[in-house]
Amino acid sequence: MSKNVVVTGGNRGIGLGLVNELLKNDQVGKVFATTRSPSNSPDLLSITDARLVVVEMDADCDDSINRAVQQVTNSVGSSGIDFLINNAGVLLPIDINAPINRKKANRNFEVNCVATMAVTYAFKELLKAGARKAGHSQVVNISSALGSISLSWGSVPPRHFTAYNMSKAALNMYTKTIGTEWKADGIRATAICPGWVKTEMGTDDAELTVEQSTSSIVSTIFKLGEANSGLFYNHNFEAYTW
Amino acid sequence: MSKNVVVTGGNRGIGLGLVNELLKNDQVGKVFATTRSPSNSPDLLSITDARLVVVEMDADCDDSINRAVQQVTNSVGSSGIDFLINNAGVLLPIDINAPINRKKANRNFEVNCVATMAVTYAFKELLKAGARKAGHSQVVNISSALGSISLSWGSVPPRHFTAYNMSKAALNMYTKTIGTEWKADGIRATAICPGWVKTEMGTDDAELTVEQSTSSIVSTIFKLGEANSGLFYNHNFEAYTW
Repeated sequence: MSKNVVVTGGNRGIGLGLVNELLKNDQVGKVFATTRSPSNSPDLLSITDARLVVVEMDADCDDSINRAVQQVTNSVGSSGIDFLINNAGVLLPIDINAPINRKKANRNFEVNCVATMAVTYAFKELLKAGARKAGHSQVVNISSALGSISLSWGSVPPRHFTAYNMSKAALNMYTKTIGTEWKADGIRATAICPGWVKTEMGTDDAELTVEQSTSSIVSTIFKLGEANSGLFYNHNFEAYTW
Repeated sequence: MSKNVVVTGGNRGIGLGLVNELLKNDQVGKVFATTRSPSNSPDLLSITDARLVVVEMDADCDDSINRAVQQVTNSVGSSGIDFLINNAGVLLPIDINAPINRKKANRNFEVNCVATMAVTYAFKELLKAGARKAGHSQVVNISSALGSISLSWGSVPPRHFTAYNMSKAALNMYTKTIGTEWKADGIRATAICPGWVKTEMGTDDAELTVEQSTSSIVSTIFKLGEANSGLFYNHNFEAYTW
């Protein structure tokens, strides 16, 4: 039974890599790649695989999210979706040893936490439909080892990641919450760290190519069971502490 | 050597209780209780202990924070402060099983995380001065067991605490970050859960009176050593996992 997948922020970086890796997998049915601006997403538009559907979605806007959900619903019908991969996120640096730039600090939470919650709730009925079809469906929240409080060793100077790290710890709490509470609907939720990846966010100094990280993530998400719901792993399916 | 203490949100609830308990302790020098509106803080104004200084501060406003820091600086001079107790916080409920109220969800982060970071940075020079005097100073972030991802069991329905819980997990990450990084300046930071307390936030159903919780917190903060910096405890100094 083929799996329908939604990937947010699918137009570049890890999101685009996930789209490409998912399309290599013949268990995958439709891949819905969301982007704020399809016409400005040349890498997505150049993919010829007919299983890919590019979906316009601005996660800051509830109307836009609802239109995206409607587009996916029209496409999948009662099959619903099997995976929602919440990949879209921002890293806005702030210096904790200077007057706090509140706007930038808040933006990390608005996008990485609150917009993700809005998107996830909006897709919940499609996730429930997927669970009715297949027994379960899966939310994957792209988190970061930097969001592990136990592993943290400071603000990662000079990169000023603190507000980002805080937002990922908060996202991890959301993952634990729905990963516990939504099991009753057959919906699982798991946090995955992609590793340090050569993207605009990760810079060229990073350890992993996009393909290395995302092929590993795609392999991992197909292994996730009910016991992994509400927990935190790296791309290689190694457990992380909170 | 007497200890100077700043308590944010000192006008009611746990903050007011901390002020009262600190003033019972003869190791305590000055207690600076911040409140948005001193004239609307009758419980603070009724305290006759000359060690109490009521300080107007709106943590949403950098100018107001800077005026408060100046007032404290004028009072303590080069002695600085020994404790900054970041108690001020909000709990704005949101339902994760309904369209997300973004404004309410974001507000939990704006107040509990970003305003706390702004206040803490603004008091950093006074904390450094305290550390020069006494060898160390201490930030105490009032957190919550509900902010422990490992202990979380869902959204605590029907109370809809998820965004609050997420904000406290994020605050815990901040505590770990500065509790690690600022040790070099002699500044420690520790997260403390006050327990479930009979306040406006905790409701009358709560387990502990304000006096029970805050007497226990004050006892605990005087026991905190360097090894406790960047870690998380309950009011009784029992360790919590993140």
